[in-house]
Amino acid sequence: MSLSTEQKFWSLLKEQSSFQEAIGLMAWDMRTKAPSKGMDNRSEVLGVLSQKVHEIQTSDVLKEYIEELKNKPSSNRLTASLQVAEETYDRTTKIPASMYREYVTLQSRAESRWAEAKENNDFKSFQPYLEELVKYNREFANLWGYEQHIYDALLYNYEPGVTVEQLDAVFPKVRESLTSLLNEIKNAPVQPDPEVLKGHFPKQQQEKFSEEILKRMSYDFEAGRLDETIHPFAIGLNVNDVRVTTKYDEKDFRTAVFGTIHEGGHALYEQNIDPNLSFTPLATGTSMGIHESQSLFWENFIARSRPFWETHYEVFRSYAPRRFEQIPLEDFFRAVNEVKPSLIRIEADELTYPLHIMVRYELEKALIQGDIEVKHLPELWNEKMHSYLGVTPRKDSEGVLQDIHWAGGDFGYFPSYALGYMYAAQIQHAMKQEIDIDETIKAGDFHQIKQWLTKNIHQYGKMKKPLSILNDVTGEGLNADYLISYLTDKYRGIYQF
Amino acid sequence: MSLSTEQKFWSLLKEQSSFQEAIGLMAWDMRTKAPSKGMDNRSEVLGVLSQKVHEIQTSDVLKEYIEELKNKPSSNRLTASLQVAEETYDRTTKIPASMYREYVTLQSRAESRWAEAKENNDFKSFQPYLEELVKYNREFANLWGYEQHIYDALLYNYEPGVTVEQLDAVFPKVRESLTSLLNEIKNAPVQPDPEVLKGHFPKQQQEKFSEEILKRMSYDFEAGRLDETIHPFAIGLNVNDVRVTTKYDEKDFRTAVFGTIHEGGHALYEQNIDPNLSFTPLATGTSMGIHESQSLFWENFIARSRPFWETHYEVFRSYAPRRFEQIPLEDFFRAVNEVKPSLIRIEADELTYPLHIMVRYELEKALIQGDIEVKHLPELWNEKMHSYLGVTPRKDSEGVLQDIHWAGGDFGYFPSYALGYMYAAQIQHAMKQEIDIDETIKAGDFHQIKQWLTKNIHQYGKMKKPLSILNDVTGEGLNADYLISYLTDKYRGIYQF
Repeated sequence: MSLSTEQKFWSLLKEQSSFQEAIGLMAWDMRTKAPSKGMDNRSEVLGVLSQKVHEIQTSDVLKEYIEELKNKPSSNRLTASLQVAEETYDRTTKIPASMYREYVTLQSRAESRWAEAKENNDFKSFQPYLEELVKYNREFANLWGYEQHIYDALLYNYEPGVTVEQLDAVFPKVRESLTSLLNEIKNAPVQPDPEVLKGHFPKQQQEKFSEEILKRMSYDFEAGRLDETIHPFAIGLNVNDVRVTTKYDEKDFRTAVFGTIHEGGHALYEQNIDPNLSFTPLATGTSMGIHESQSLFWENFIARSRPFWETHYEVFRSYAPRRFEQIPLEDFFRAVNEVKPSLIRIEADELTYPLHIMVRYELEKALIQGDIEVKHLPELWNEKMHSYLGVTPRKDSEGVLQDIHWAGGDFGYFPSYALGYMYAAQIQHAMKQEIDIDETIKAGDFHQIKQWLTKNIHQYGKMKKPLSILNDVTGEGLNADYLISYLTDKYRGIYQF
Repeated sequence: MSLSTEQKFWSLLKEQSSFQEAIGLMAWDMRTKAPSKGMDNRSEVLGVLSQKVHEIQTSDVLKEYIEELKNKPSSNRLTASLQVAEETYDRTTKIPASMYREYVTLQSRAESRWAEAKENNDFKSFQPYLEELVKYNREFANLWGYEQHIYDALLYNYEPGVTVEQLDAVFPKVRESLTSLLNEIKNAPVQPDPEVLKGHFPKQQQEKFSEEILKRMSYDFEAGRLDETIHPFAIGLNVNDVRVTTKYDEKDFRTAVFGTIHEGGHALYEQNIDPNLSFTPLATGTSMGIHESQSLFWENFIARSRPFWETHYEVFRSYAPRRFEQIPLEDFFRAVNEVKPSLIRIEADELTYPLHIMVRYELEKALIQGDIEVKHLPELWNEKMHSYLGVTPRKDSEGVLQDIHWAGGDFGYFPSYALGYMYAAQIQHAMKQEIDIDETIKAGDFHQIKQWLTKNIHQYGKMKKPLSILNDVTGEGLNADYLISYLTDKYRGIYQF
């Protein structure tokens, strides 16, 4: 019995996604369970499997199947799979194999150099690596091609369809609004007292509360699990095995609580993709930004909202140390929403967070466009931090060296964080037309919200591109007004100005 | 730069062992951590990766490399890798692909039918599947070829080099000696009281003691980990990542303590293979039997010995419930060495265990030789149990249906358990010529023992065949006398006859 081209195409994609599930499990294992001494061997195994995926994605036989199938009438699933596979084929084969190998070596060296440079607060030692990475990324961008801006070619890796033109139409507005909001907050009559949150909170109790909240979010523990790690993440191995990790800080429960909910938002996306897309390249979130919209929706729009704590403060207290009995809801709510400009992105509050992204976006865009040089980065970084956030790093390890992204050559990635946040605000606005979100949150039943998200976003996986999801859900394109008014309203209330 | 044939050969083997590490991790994960709903998808992924391994093992290109390299002068590592790869190639390609596919389907059906049949105590419903499995295995044996006995061809899968002739020269002697020993024990003046061991023993404390003992055995926790599972196992993902699993029965600590030490023995083997063998087919234990010799050496010859408890009873008590303070060492030692014929192999004590194996060996050999029919198995099973152990199953679920092995088509596997035990006794005897084992155990320092095992056995991986390991270590072939005299001496002491 001979197989049809379509069957052979699916079979090749299944092989690819099987390797990817294995890679995913190995990555999860390395970050949660694997013994330290096994890491070297494991890295080599990961290298071999990644190479196999790369071979499939760039294989002549795959290209033949695509060419044969793409002009025939077919299902949406096949059409979308062909598109994704072809796009990956085209972009990947545009980079010469030898160039890509050099780049992978550079990445790996640059990452360890970056770690040392951060440790020793020594930007100079990292500078030549970063210069090389920028050079390669400019070359990649030219090979991939672009219409208007060279940086668009890199953005495409994370947020296909979004361009510099679109970003520059909204980001400055966000930046200015948030900067002025921040000034008002600084001078506001009421200031929250975050000290009420501090103090010992046993890990085991934090873990139990984290589990409870994930369950309430409709995260399915029979199709996932929660583990501890150093840098939290969520990972979808398959639609029925989507794992969340978190980090417990016994001196500050916020790390685990908001971190778990954030990763839970990512996980809900992956758990609720249409199972019919399994073993195709469509069985994952459509973009970094849409993914981030899901995590930020749950973390900020739900878990930092007043209605959430009106119901869940009692639940929280049932796990928390007894001193929380003495802290009124209002003080608690304000404290978890304290706005305080700081140097480190991943510790930023929800209002200043987008400003950290603006700093990075503006700098990396200018780097790729050749408008600035790597050696001037520390100085430019510090200037922007001072100008947007009013704080200035005393050393590069808490400035330009803080994030791993550039060391990994990930240019074009940062904007997704801010985009995700804007998407989330737009999505919330759209959801409000159909659901009384505040009432639902207060009732402590998130089913309706989760179902809405699944119906409108999750189920599609990569069947729709990010901007087409956004358009279908909100009826419009990228619009920063929703985020600005959400933050303005919320923080006027909290800080009473 | 073009690669030499040898480089291409190593690279193909590295690919194979990378897939195997991924398969190993997935198997470990499914049995310890993976969420239930993800199992179906995971099974498919496992199927894809196993297929890739099979493709490499039977590939023309591998065969070409082997043919080109095998007659050139080369390193031991290359010679042994070529031998293993060629043998796998030859045996695997002798089975027609379509026949193998049918067999895999049969296996999977038979296993689920077996589970139902065991549940419902219904041998008849399983009988046709078992008949088919026997038929296939006879065909495989004929395809693989053999010199004297058809069953030899199956034995080769688990214990290459060992034949029916050799087994029949020792097994009956073991059986008769143990049966008569058992009779003396039944009539002995002193009988241990296992009741002293029973009662609640919190899981967490058992876990801590298990970890402590593994550490004392020189199991390297930086190159492994201990987890909980239903059916305990040890698995080597690579030489620096060898994981142990165990099971905690809060009503009977023996399950976890002796189970952990048993799996720890397997793990020490895999952790101490020469790292130069990594990414070759040599980087694992040489056979089922030699592997079992390592687990049984630690479980029985060490952890059930008097010197062990003379030192470790205090350690044990520091984790155990307080009631053990009232139980004298002598009573405890006798109780953990109670001999009691029972129906279930995996619950058997160290003296009756080989008799369970004899029942299985004799029956499966006769089945494969065509001397008996599947439909007579239950009756024959019960007769042998009665004759060797003096106990008779009341139902097939605690008789012929108890083990999964035959349902998986694993004929030729059972003898390895008894062989491993004999090997262990022979190895102990050889070790005694160089090390005062009792003193070492009493001193609680197992380093010397572990180093001896590594030097003589572990390091070689699959570089040597089982009987060549045995010969090199003990200066002789298979000899049951050491096991018989070990058991006779030990149990005469305990039961005072």
